Amino acid sequence: MTAEPARGRPASAPASQTLSRGIRVLELLADAGEPLTIDELAERLGVHRSIAYRLVRTLEDHGLVTRDPTGGVALGARMASLAAGVAPDLQAEALPELTTVANELGMTCFLAVLDHDECVILASVEPRHAVASVAQRPGTRHPVSVGAPGKALLTALPESEWPSGASAQLTAEVAAVGARGYAQSHDEVIPSVKSVAVPLRLRGRSPAAIAVVYVASGTEPATIGARLAASATSIREALGD
Amino acid sequence: MTAEPARGRPASAPASQTLSRGIRVLELLADAGEPLTIDELAERLGVHRSIAYRLVRTLEDHGLVTRDPTGGVALGARMASLAAGVAPDLQAEALPELTTVANELGMTCFLAVLDHDECVILASVEPRHAVASVAQRPGTRHPVSVGAPGKALLTALPESEWPSGASAQLTAEVAAVGARGYAQSHDEVIPSVKSVAVPLRLRGRSPAAIAVVYVASGTEPATIGARLAASATSIREALGD
Repeated sequence: MTAEPARGRPASAPASQTLSRGIRVLELLADAGEPLTIDELAERLGVHRSIAYRLVRTLEDHGLVTRDPTGGVALGARMASLAAGVAPDLQAEALPELTTVANELGMTCFLAVLDHDECVILASVEPRHAVASVAQRPGTRHPVSVGAPGKALLTALPESEWPSGASAQLTAEVAAVGARGYAQSHDEVIPSVKSVAVPLRLRGRSPAAIAVVYVASGTEPATIGARLAASATSIREALGD
Repeated sequence: MTAEPARGRPASAPASQTLSRGIRVLELLADAGEPLTIDELAERLGVHRSIAYRLVRTLEDHGLVTRDPTGGVALGARMASLAAGVAPDLQAEALPELTTVANELGMTCFLAVLDHDECVILASVEPRHAVASVAQRPGTRHPVSVGAPGKALLTALPESEWPSGASAQLTAEVAAVGARGYAQSHDEVIPSVKSVAVPLRLRGRSPAAIAVVYVASGTEPATIGARLAASATSIREALGD
């Protein structure tokens, strides 16, 4: 089993197989959502038990995984500290805006960023009236070609960098989003949930978006879009962009 | 440069140097809080540029780091997805309770867990009136021996597993917390900020705590502690513990 070659990079600089396998352990644990044994990890990695054991030991030394008394391996709390280092200034400036918008509109408001072909939620704030709000936990990801936040992200990318296989409908939708300034979706990522999103373009960074999700609202999508656009401007100014 | 030996483990199972160095890259980027060049990473790792480059390439293949056009290496959004896999059921059950408590008390409410000798914040919710709330971002960590959440965590650990060098005062304080059911602190982790915390003991898991931070409040610490204890019970029941 070899590490996957990187897209569009010369074969002369191969990836490190050991490091790649160690990261695969973290990915497998995140996907499983429950502790896995060394044997289960070895099987899923396609390696001998002794290799899996050594990887787990190393990850454990760094606090990235923990082992419970029954031998179950799970992600460790230190992963959360590393994640706090993703775009820390952007997260810090966005959080007060997300909080204000969430409470003003009574909707869950979040910051999404582009990660390869996926839309990843970096930070999320639920409104005060939790009874009707939709949860959108940080770390959630889905293909960038669906949902309002994804389309808002795509407006900031040349079509040549879009995921392969984009439909003519998607191209038309993203063009409309660019012209209108906000994206909207219904029933795309989460059944019966609506979303409105605006792009957040920042110099020298990959595209970001601010979005809300809700089931029903008396506020028009255009009004929501204008409110989100004002927040995007505030965040850009706070970052000196 | 060799990987640090694990505490209290046999030298016969050495850690993987390559994996360890790859994780050091992530740690350096999280600590730096800004992009670093390959040369800066190589210097801080104490390795040749070509080794640092290969590590970065591999991390990039997995989406854990990104490189900007000027060559700066930064943590990638996929780190956030991995962090969402830390105790996912605990995070999911705690979030509604944290939200309710934050809004009832008008204070930032968070979930902390023990990570070796540190208290790490896994999830945090700010109250509706953001003007007076104290930010406690997920991923924040500090020594477990200071602050109310740390002391609440220590009540769940035998003293033999405490960080070395615990003072007699700390021992007495933690004993008092155990007897009273909640911990309180003032001016310990963040200047002029107060905190109240209760332990959240879950079978087969490392210790957790629920806590609030605030600058001033008309509510007595004992009342806050009782409210947090009720939430801890709800979370335990939701997890079938």
